Amino acid sequence: MKTRAAVAFEAKKPLEIVELDLEGPKQGEVLVELMATGLCHTDAFTLSGEDPEGLFPAVLGHEGCGVVREIGPGVTSVKPDDHVVPLYTPECRECEYCLNPKTNLCQAIRSTQGQGLMPDGTSRFSYKGKTIYHYMGTSTFSNFTVLPEIAVAKIRADAPFDTTCYVGCGVTTGIGAVVNTAKVEPGSRVVVFGLGGIGLNVIQGAKLAGASQIVGVDINPDRADWGCKFGMTHFLNPQDGGDVVERIVNLTGGGADYSFECIGKTEVMRQALECCHKGWGESVVIGVAGAGEEIATRPFQLVTGRVWRGSAFGGARGRTDVPQIVDWYMNGQIEIDPMITHRLSLDEINKGFDLMHEGESIRGVVVY
Amino acid sequence: MKTRAAVAFEAKKPLEIVELDLEGPKQGEVLVELMATGLCHTDAFTLSGEDPEGLFPAVLGHEGCGVVREIGPGVTSVKPDDHVVPLYTPECRECEYCLNPKTNLCQAIRSTQGQGLMPDGTSRFSYKGKTIYHYMGTSTFSNFTVLPEIAVAKIRADAPFDTTCYVGCGVTTGIGAVVNTAKVEPGSRVVVFGLGGIGLNVIQGAKLAGASQIVGVDINPDRADWGCKFGMTHFLNPQDGGDVVERIVNLTGGGADYSFECIGKTEVMRQALECCHKGWGESVVIGVAGAGEEIATRPFQLVTGRVWRGSAFGGARGRTDVPQIVDWYMNGQIEIDPMITHRLSLDEINKGFDLMHEGESIRGVVVY
Repeated sequence: MKTRAAVAFEAKKPLEIVELDLEGPKQGEVLVELMATGLCHTDAFTLSGEDPEGLFPAVLGHEGCGVVREIGPGVTSVKPDDHVVPLYTPECRECEYCLNPKTNLCQAIRSTQGQGLMPDGTSRFSYKGKTIYHYMGTSTFSNFTVLPEIAVAKIRADAPFDTTCYVGCGVTTGIGAVVNTAKVEPGSRVVVFGLGGIGLNVIQGAKLAGASQIVGVDINPDRADWGCKFGMTHFLNPQDGGDVVERIVNLTGGGADYSFECIGKTEVMRQALECCHKGWGESVVIGVAGAGEEIATRPFQLVTGRVWRGSAFGGARGRTDVPQIVDWYMNGQIEIDPMITHRLSLDEINKGFDLMHEGESIRGVVVY
Repeated sequence: MKTRAAVAFEAKKPLEIVELDLEGPKQGEVLVELMATGLCHTDAFTLSGEDPEGLFPAVLGHEGCGVVREIGPGVTSVKPDDHVVPLYTPECRECEYCLNPKTNLCQAIRSTQGQGLMPDGTSRFSYKGKTIYHYMGTSTFSNFTVLPEIAVAKIRADAPFDTTCYVGCGVTTGIGAVVNTAKVEPGSRVVVFGLGGIGLNVIQGAKLAGASQIVGVDINPDRADWGCKFGMTHFLNPQDGGDVVERIVNLTGGGADYSFECIGKTEVMRQALECCHKGWGESVVIGVAGAGEEIATRPFQLVTGRVWRGSAFGGARGRTDVPQIVDWYMNGQIEIDPMITHRLSLDEINKGFDLMHEGESIRGVVVY
């Protein structure tokens, strides 16, 4: 079949909207018609050429929502017309990782996914006979895409596509880091570094978990209003002078119970750890640092009780946790609508990236 | 009263055995007759002059066992003739830290302890009218010492002094890091870096907790036999060639569930983190690094599920947990006797430090 898609033919170039050939689903795969996809910094990072694992030409995009249109042989967990969110972190429920309650990093299809291929080692996308790679196992910048069955979360049919797509990455990454990775308790003091699309979701996750103090930290003063919309109680701009760590320790009465780094800057990751409370403060790294960059601190920070951990896809098991987060959204326990700042057609996708780079959007979404 | 003590009059000089004046216990304090004290690397570190918080002249020593001889006003939890272990990490059961189940770092007397003084801001020790500082709130290199009530753990009276003193630091630090800090589960794969007085206790703690694989790592091949005595299942010498992290990942079938750094070298702390299993491996820093030294790693190590934490005094609440560890020893669940390699008189204490520096002792003990 044919599908319209935004293709990254090479790094640092705008995406090109073309019609691709798409093979139908093979054993254990499903064909999904995407109805919407978010534009995330990770797509921009890969497109920039700085992602050492980036492959080209590829169909980028990993934050989608759509409808199953066809299933391949052996597929049992979804059927045509089911509404689904593609999962860049799948959940096979059979591998050593899925069977260990401490992790969400299913490894069932990791190696082929990293090579831009479906689990059988081939791509479903081609253009004029030439292979186009999949991206993060999802490739949501295509009106139709093929996904392994274990890489789709079935969700309720009444959730709107153009907001629920955000659950495919940003919402789950932020809220999940709070509830799954850090396991923030009611009454906690939480500090969030970076109030972008992830940080705002950390804030609303902390509010959901009953945190009593939620401090947002950003060098962009405009983000203070954004933070307040989702439950932030205090805002701190590092550029207002003084040592950031000291200011946070004072503001929180001794340090954060939990801190979250949502930017990807290693020096901020250090601040996030060191502003934690002696004895029990835990810092969660969410942001993705540049290739080869390192975090550092004095080991005394750990020996005196601080904990340094990280979170990928919010520690969420996609097929299990994504439908629950969609329920929270539909129940009004969390908000998504105000974060969707721009809705674009597929033809306008490059404009969406421009808005992101200019800091003008929280989340831009392409609606098919 | 008078007490014989080994005094560190200045850094880098041998201890001098002299008779000190010792004031009796004031409000909330107890007088303890030490019966034995271990010699620990931390004493040697302070004596070396490299400890930025080291104060002189002082009575060093923090790993003792003895008998309460006198109690000051207001003391209710111990009485004369009670057997006790001095606690350099006290347990007041009232401060914000004691009331938080996530930490053992009681802060009730921290500032005066750090200044080498009792909680009222004065010292009980003097020599020829000149103040001699307390050390770590314990000063066990003195036949008699004065301690705050909250800094003694009452233990059973049938535990031998010359082995039980080791519970005052090394045994609790090692076993506690396993059971309190890491909470190692049965079946875990554990890797221990440094098979000295702490590392061997980590090994027997891991055995007690039911670990199925216990890998010891040391550049001294003689320590392999020592490790085996306490439950080590595999020994790895980093000097045998090849990348240590890679060798451990292969040996453990993917990485450690828990690793422990018991040396104090920042490059080893990094290896200890990076040899942990993707998705869930946790590394615990126990060793004390030199002043100003830093640990580093790529944040990717955390984002893919590894956790970096630290442990001080084995995460143990002294008055609660030390008596329990003494019970485990007396019940035969853990061993201490084989680790006490040298027994010395107080007059021989400098020889004990020489043996430690030469790597000849696991634990030297002064018996009063």
